[in-house]
Amino acid sequence: MRYLITFSYDGSSFRGYQKQPNRRTIQGEVETVLENINDNKKVDIVASGRTDAGVHALNQKAHFDLDIKITEDKLKKAMNSMLPDDVYVKRVEIVPNDFHARYDVSCKEYVYKINLGEYDPISKDYVLQYNKKLDVVEIERALKYIEGTHDFKSFTKADDEKDNYVRTIFSANLTRDIKNVNFLTFTFLGTGFMRYMVRNLVGTLIEIGEGKMKSEEIFTIFSKKDRKAAGKTAAPNGLYLKDVFYR
Amino acid sequence: MRYLITFSYDGSSFRGYQKQPNRRTIQGEVETVLENINDNKKVDIVASGRTDAGVHALNQKAHFDLDIKITEDKLKKAMNSMLPDDVYVKRVEIVPNDFHARYDVSCKEYVYKINLGEYDPISKDYVLQYNKKLDVVEIERALKYIEGTHDFKSFTKADDEKDNYVRTIFSANLTRDIKNVNFLTFTFLGTGFMRYMVRNLVGTLIEIGEGKMKSEEIFTIFSKKDRKAAGKTAAPNGLYLKDVFYR
Repeated sequence: MRYLITFSYDGSSFRGYQKQPNRRTIQGEVETVLENINDNKKVDIVASGRTDAGVHALNQKAHFDLDIKITEDKLKKAMNSMLPDDVYVKRVEIVPNDFHARYDVSCKEYVYKINLGEYDPISKDYVLQYNKKLDVVEIERALKYIEGTHDFKSFTKADDEKDNYVRTIFSANLTRDIKNVNFLTFTFLGTGFMRYMVRNLVGTLIEIGEGKMKSEEIFTIFSKKDRKAAGKTAAPNGLYLKDVFYR
Repeated sequence: MRYLITFSYDGSSFRGYQKQPNRRTIQGEVETVLENINDNKKVDIVASGRTDAGVHALNQKAHFDLDIKITEDKLKKAMNSMLPDDVYVKRVEIVPNDFHARYDVSCKEYVYKINLGEYDPISKDYVLQYNKKLDVVEIERALKYIEGTHDFKSFTKADDEKDNYVRTIFSANLTRDIKNVNFLTFTFLGTGFMRYMVRNLVGTLIEIGEGKMKSEEIFTIFSKKDRKAAGKTAAPNGLYLKDVFYR
């Protein structure tokens, strides 16, 4: 039976999503729990994509096959009773055997949180502590240039070799927290995000907000297809995989 | 020169506010930094009050005297450059030599956050994960009975011997997060809060919300002056010292 889980995690104490020997990873923790449930037979989980060390997830998705028969409700309870307190399974669904949590992704939503106000020790692992003013109007202009279908090679991890760097971003927005105008949230909804792509977009948008670049330079960066043309990679702590949608 | 600082901290990795040998405490960290600034001469800080292990502060206040002369701005910068990343000084003020951060408190504000929705791994250290429904209307009735001047002995740590347990709570409210109706915040504004008092009030309010007690039983609890009459002590992770006001 093939299962699809929706799960959330606090990325702060993980060395990233992907399993690595002797490192605490999300995949590692989830597979250990599933093997326990699956009569100690190996279980390979396939997520919608990886997240880097320190990146959080509100609704990550993954599929896997179990040898045993167990209902969705019971599997959810069993997993949550064994998982560490920084990972939580929100939903379990039985899916067709040809469902694939990565290949079938239709679009994904990421959010990135920034605090422009004073340093806040309580949110340090959950919000980028930028702690200075930014030109939000210029950033919002650049966000509109990012929307659409573009070659995102300049915004991808430099040594990440791919056949195709073209992706579509349906929407790229910035919202302010109504209770604290210094808390900003970027939202990116798109067909796919390559390694470091959201963090490189945010790092570039910050440089635009600092006045180091004009918003129109986004077009130059796209055309150069060179990682060096874009801004720095923003820290992982402000990034959340918010949603994964399937056709 | 006497200084008053306003500071915030994430209580998650501390064994509480008050200095203890070989334990990481907020007072310990702040005094170490101040002694460094004060030419290695001992500095004793006096806070508005202690907070327990795991309790956070948004605007804690403390006073201390320094032997050296330093401006407010420079002291703030020096302290923040040396403090660990879970403590932050928001403001430094020079105050009269007879100002006292504890004795001169006029009132204090505490907030307590609860999640009635599904378990959230990302806020686990910052919001009580109650994860079930509560009768919010009955809780709100009880909050109105808590407001006013009462003997709070039943809500104080059992072995905390005091001459006087009478305190005034000016306001006790409950608000729902507009983006997530399952996130509730209690706010208590009062003349003074004894050890575990807010956590015991919240623990009792939860039992009222569970239907284990009626809201009117608050009056019986007040009259008994016995810790056993009230509900359990709520966990520290949802509690924040929000503000301290001086006359």
